[in-house]
Amino acid sequence: MSTAAHFSLASWSLAPLSLVEDALSHWVTTDALPGQDWGAPVELVQSMRYAVLDGGKRLRPLLVMAAFEAAVAPRTDGQKNAALRAACAVELIHAYSLVHDDMPCMDNDVLRRGKPTVHVQFGEAAALLAGDALQALAFELLTPADGSVPLALQGRLCGLLARAAGSTGMAGGQAIDLASVGSVLDEQALRHMHRLKTGALLQASVALGAACGEASDQAQRALNAFGQALGLAFQVVDDVLDVTADSATLGKTAGKDAQHDKPTYVSLMGLERSQRYAQDLLTQAHAALLDSGLKDTAALAALADMVVHRSH
Amino acid sequence: MSTAAHFSLASWSLAPLSLVEDALSHWVTTDALPGQDWGAPVELVQSMRYAVLDGGKRLRPLLVMAAFEAAVAPRTDGQKNAALRAACAVELIHAYSLVHDDMPCMDNDVLRRGKPTVHVQFGEAAALLAGDALQALAFELLTPADGSVPLALQGRLCGLLARAAGSTGMAGGQAIDLASVGSVLDEQALRHMHRLKTGALLQASVALGAACGEASDQAQRALNAFGQALGLAFQVVDDVLDVTADSATLGKTAGKDAQHDKPTYVSLMGLERSQRYAQDLLTQAHAALLDSGLKDTAALAALADMVVHRSH
Repeated sequence: MSTAAHFSLASWSLAPLSLVEDALSHWVTTDALPGQDWGAPVELVQSMRYAVLDGGKRLRPLLVMAAFEAAVAPRTDGQKNAALRAACAVELIHAYSLVHDDMPCMDNDVLRRGKPTVHVQFGEAAALLAGDALQALAFELLTPADGSVPLALQGRLCGLLARAAGSTGMAGGQAIDLASVGSVLDEQALRHMHRLKTGALLQASVALGAACGEASDQAQRALNAFGQALGLAFQVVDDVLDVTADSATLGKTAGKDAQHDKPTYVSLMGLERSQRYAQDLLTQAHAALLDSGLKDTAALAALADMVVHRSH
Repeated sequence: MSTAAHFSLASWSLAPLSLVEDALSHWVTTDALPGQDWGAPVELVQSMRYAVLDGGKRLRPLLVMAAFEAAVAPRTDGQKNAALRAACAVELIHAYSLVHDDMPCMDNDVLRRGKPTVHVQFGEAAALLAGDALQALAFELLTPADGSVPLALQGRLCGLLARAAGSTGMAGGQAIDLASVGSVLDEQALRHMHRLKTGALLQASVALGAACGEASDQAQRALNAFGQALGLAFQVVDDVLDVTADSATLGKTAGKDAQHDKPTYVSLMGLERSQRYAQDLLTQAHAALLDSGLKDTAALAALADMVVHRSH
């Protein structure tokens, strides 16, 4: 159940990370993109770039690229341009959610990755607009007017992303989270909240990559199961780290969940059972990769390992 | 240049308005839609419905439906389901923009159409999330998983809507507006701001309907010109009404632009020239309809007349 002995995630990541960083910088721009008569205003683009080009871990784009590479037939290019666009699009959705989450009416965070948050840097109105524009830009990236992505695939990708971002995905999970502070959720309700809040976009990342790689139905089903297990594991580990790691390692305030009376896996099932649960989910994720019938799943397996074994 | 003598916009509107209201109520829901494993949380849907099912004029949906009916070949159904979805999708984008615009960090409005605004009714965090989820839902409506809209058309519609909503459309226009309060814009800059802020979504409404009606390239170009003239006229008339109408007729505070030192067409070119400009744009819109080569443009023509001759 462990990752191929000779696979290095760090080495593998270099190429997709560099592609994604360049593409994000290229597409979050004041230049007019193909099919547009003018570019975006500089005031807006400034805050959008600040939100996006900030050195996050890029887990979601890496999942898109790894799923794409696993799914694409050997010695073909598949829809590589579409995969890169999808990788950037999920990151834009993730970035917008952080901008809006940090705002005073939500979590009221003033620092993110050691930098002032977007609303501290540019004002609340600008942060609101930057988030709104980042969400739209995600769908713009998936629907280029230059013919580089087949129209039917554009529709497919937009559908996957919209459902992951919306009221039955990320935004829905945040609404449940907002409504549940101070209340007691049972395990089923907690799992449902996290499936939406963080799971949906992680699972969609895998599904987007698989769609661009034109994976078989069997492979897509298996990769969906992989994405679902990984999405849940991500949150369980988040809750564990909030208790076990110190703030310096975490890069954010540790113990914040308990302090805010937030329901977590640890508060619900205890630390030890939570750790075991994360391990079980990792085992499920690896099993799903075997089920997929795909040969080249080492990067996906290593990303799942990283999610569960990370220290921050 | 005037609308066909026997056409009644009020009678024509009845059917599409009823379709759109029913569809919005059906789709902004806690029920799981096809392709989804669960529905949206009730807390979120409550505020989304409050924002959407509020008796607006539905100008944008009517433009979609009128453009669709003009473009679709006689005695065929065209992509009628797609047109209804597009009509609802533009309204969701419009509704989300109002929710976010009304928030304290933006216009800080407490009343809209005589009701407390969403953030007053549900809190700021809920309003932020409702707007975010409404934007995503617009793209969900355009990408049904039930096969009722061809995938390629889904891609086409998502591309049109994303560009109209994003940083080179509505969100971009709002960012320019935000940055230009208290400063002097020349006519070109003012026109550019309005093309993005209100024009892009109005123009996209026409383009979405035309795409669902599978209009010829010539017809789509002409309808684009129509939508552009109508979009500009809408804003010029808005500026004129802010000066000439009283608050009761307007349903909002008159004279607000001057009070907030906002650049407007009236402040820039004076009242009389602004009124003449609106009339010129209406003439351009009617001319574009003639250029389209389409027979059945009475509803579009009447909607343009209404935009220019409205009293609020």
